[in-house]
Amino acid sequence: MGSVGSVTPQRVRLEAPLPLQSGAALPGCELVYETYGTLNAARSNAVLVCHALNASHHVAGTVPDGSLGWWDNLVGPGKPLDTDRFFVIGVNNPGSCFGSTGPMHANPATGRPWGSDFPVVTVEDWVDAQARLLDHLGIAQLAAVLGGSLGGMQALAWALRHPARVRAVAAIATAPNLSAQNIAFNEVARRAIITDPDFHGGHFYAHGVVPQRGLRVARMLGHITYLSDDSMEARFGRRLQRGEHAALAYSTLDIEFAVESYLRHQGDKFSGYFDANTYLLITRALDYFDPARAHGGNLAKAFAAARGLHFLVVSFTTDWRFAPARSREIVKALVDNDIAVNYAEIDAPHGHDAFLLDDRRYHALVRAWFEKVAT
Amino acid sequence: MGSVGSVTPQRVRLEAPLPLQSGAALPGCELVYETYGTLNAARSNAVLVCHALNASHHVAGTVPDGSLGWWDNLVGPGKPLDTDRFFVIGVNNPGSCFGSTGPMHANPATGRPWGSDFPVVTVEDWVDAQARLLDHLGIAQLAAVLGGSLGGMQALAWALRHPARVRAVAAIATAPNLSAQNIAFNEVARRAIITDPDFHGGHFYAHGVVPQRGLRVARMLGHITYLSDDSMEARFGRRLQRGEHAALAYSTLDIEFAVESYLRHQGDKFSGYFDANTYLLITRALDYFDPARAHGGNLAKAFAAARGLHFLVVSFTTDWRFAPARSREIVKALVDNDIAVNYAEIDAPHGHDAFLLDDRRYHALVRAWFEKVAT
Repeated sequence: MGSVGSVTPQRVRLEAPLPLQSGAALPGCELVYETYGTLNAARSNAVLVCHALNASHHVAGTVPDGSLGWWDNLVGPGKPLDTDRFFVIGVNNPGSCFGSTGPMHANPATGRPWGSDFPVVTVEDWVDAQARLLDHLGIAQLAAVLGGSLGGMQALAWALRHPARVRAVAAIATAPNLSAQNIAFNEVARRAIITDPDFHGGHFYAHGVVPQRGLRVARMLGHITYLSDDSMEARFGRRLQRGEHAALAYSTLDIEFAVESYLRHQGDKFSGYFDANTYLLITRALDYFDPARAHGGNLAKAFAAARGLHFLVVSFTTDWRFAPARSREIVKALVDNDIAVNYAEIDAPHGHDAFLLDDRRYHALVRAWFEKVAT
Repeated sequence: MGSVGSVTPQRVRLEAPLPLQSGAALPGCELVYETYGTLNAARSNAVLVCHALNASHHVAGTVPDGSLGWWDNLVGPGKPLDTDRFFVIGVNNPGSCFGSTGPMHANPATGRPWGSDFPVVTVEDWVDAQARLLDHLGIAQLAAVLGGSLGGMQALAWALRHPARVRAVAAIATAPNLSAQNIAFNEVARRAIITDPDFHGGHFYAHGVVPQRGLRVARMLGHITYLSDDSMEARFGRRLQRGEHAALAYSTLDIEFAVESYLRHQGDKFSGYFDANTYLLITRALDYFDPARAHGGNLAKAFAAARGLHFLVVSFTTDWRFAPARSREIVKALVDNDIAVNYAEIDAPHGHDAFLLDDRRYHALVRAWFEKVAT
């Protein structure tokens, strides 16, 4: 198994405005994307990989700054999603802060950064933008679409909005909608950002500041929900930051426990590169995703649109953000429609983050499913 | 079953400084407390009730402003903790913001509010202060000590520090220490408060401001951990704030879901009365509690000090803050020492908050245990 090697991001401008679920339209939307492998003559071997909150078009290989793609362990020559057989596309979603048109870019109507005036984008809007990219690439139908977490919601939305343009759908560590608790965590993160005095109502760019305090708190909180209780316990437990035999500092302001140091570091790092308006947009897209809503809450009715497609659904036992029970709701809706689905609950200790990790059984399963899809 | 009726808080000043675990001492500590029922001639029927994060000495009955005690459903004439039989004491802990000496009071050394210079207080320090109150009241030995959550940790600490001064210990919805995840949630809340520009390093009193943004976020987050996933789902689900058939607002800044409105309301309310330095102190006391630490992590060794006492340990199935498994650790340590313990896991949907609610089986259990203790 090798790497796709060095890759160069590409860019496309969607000439016609992108109509959005909200009724607004996004003008002059640019999408940044990467591709790995070769599109075959029949243009039938394309696989789209959809990203989650803190990721981008850079799925595999190495870009000039040296950073490795976020799913490089899964995508490459000889890897479970094999770029010797598939033409793999990673695309950055509108509203992101990693290259595609987002709130830090100029609003054509004002010439100033969109900020919090950037239109609210949904999972469905992203999928529609991705379909435009396929038009640009001359791809009528995907062999498959694959995503984890929020990316898994996009994979599901492909099946429901553009079922004729995709043959197979892999939805990993995801849910058919957010629970009240999921929404609640998102709302705490948003309030931390919005009430940071440096947020300036979402127009902080003009003030030369960034709401770093709020972003830090949002990321620290998010991080807790990505890890399992068990993995945090195994990794940090009650270990003191200054060593097992150190005297207690008895301080409310300083770091005492190793887990505090880890979280602060994650928060600091994130607040240095992630955009606050993007954080709000992406958490809202998560909140809004709910394909059953248009069908009176009946998920099986929603999935009637996806008859004839092949699904892979994977969950992880210790994922409490999108627990296995949420994946089983998806599986039930598929089975109710006699839709082919492979489902696995992987016994992994890592919580929600497990979908990004290199677990032997999980990767073997993805590999086998793609081998079936390709034939 | 009746109410204890109207009650008047009382106040005692501890003349000698209170020595603290940190090595510091708290000078001139005043404690506010309430009592319900009558101390018998043998002075043998006293029960101490310890409070958790957002509570106080006001356990039962009604104070002049009309507010009902936080455990009024459990404590009163004919109630599970029967004030016709027991002399019940509620006491506010040092560091609190509900009357006993805390960070908003004057530091005798400077004449200015303590603020973040208030010494770090631990569960053990609180128990020692409570013992001083018993001295003042002329009570050599408690019939029982009772507490839930952080109050349960105080009940356990009574058994370990002052086993000769208590005959029975009831520890409800608690844990022998915080997990890494518990500490992590506390740390997120603390960072939200400390990085609020209105915190002013903990000396905000002099600036005429309060770090309300941070307190709001801390409370919203805390609230999520007090409720179960199931109870949030049952109460709020994905219900829209403006009604089931309202059009979506497609906003990142405004309230869309009912659960958001509820959390914001809880945060606003809390930030209007709770002290930020108290929040830091109390979460740190939670973090530090770890009676096994002095015994190489062996909880059974710690509980050897409590031989001869009678315990009640209660957990709630949907409590994910202090899950039943944490209570079972306590039970195991007691059983390893041949200490008498009644243990129950109550099948309740309400999460951690269940310990404050009026559940028939739970209250029947507490009643039966107190009847046994009293004889």
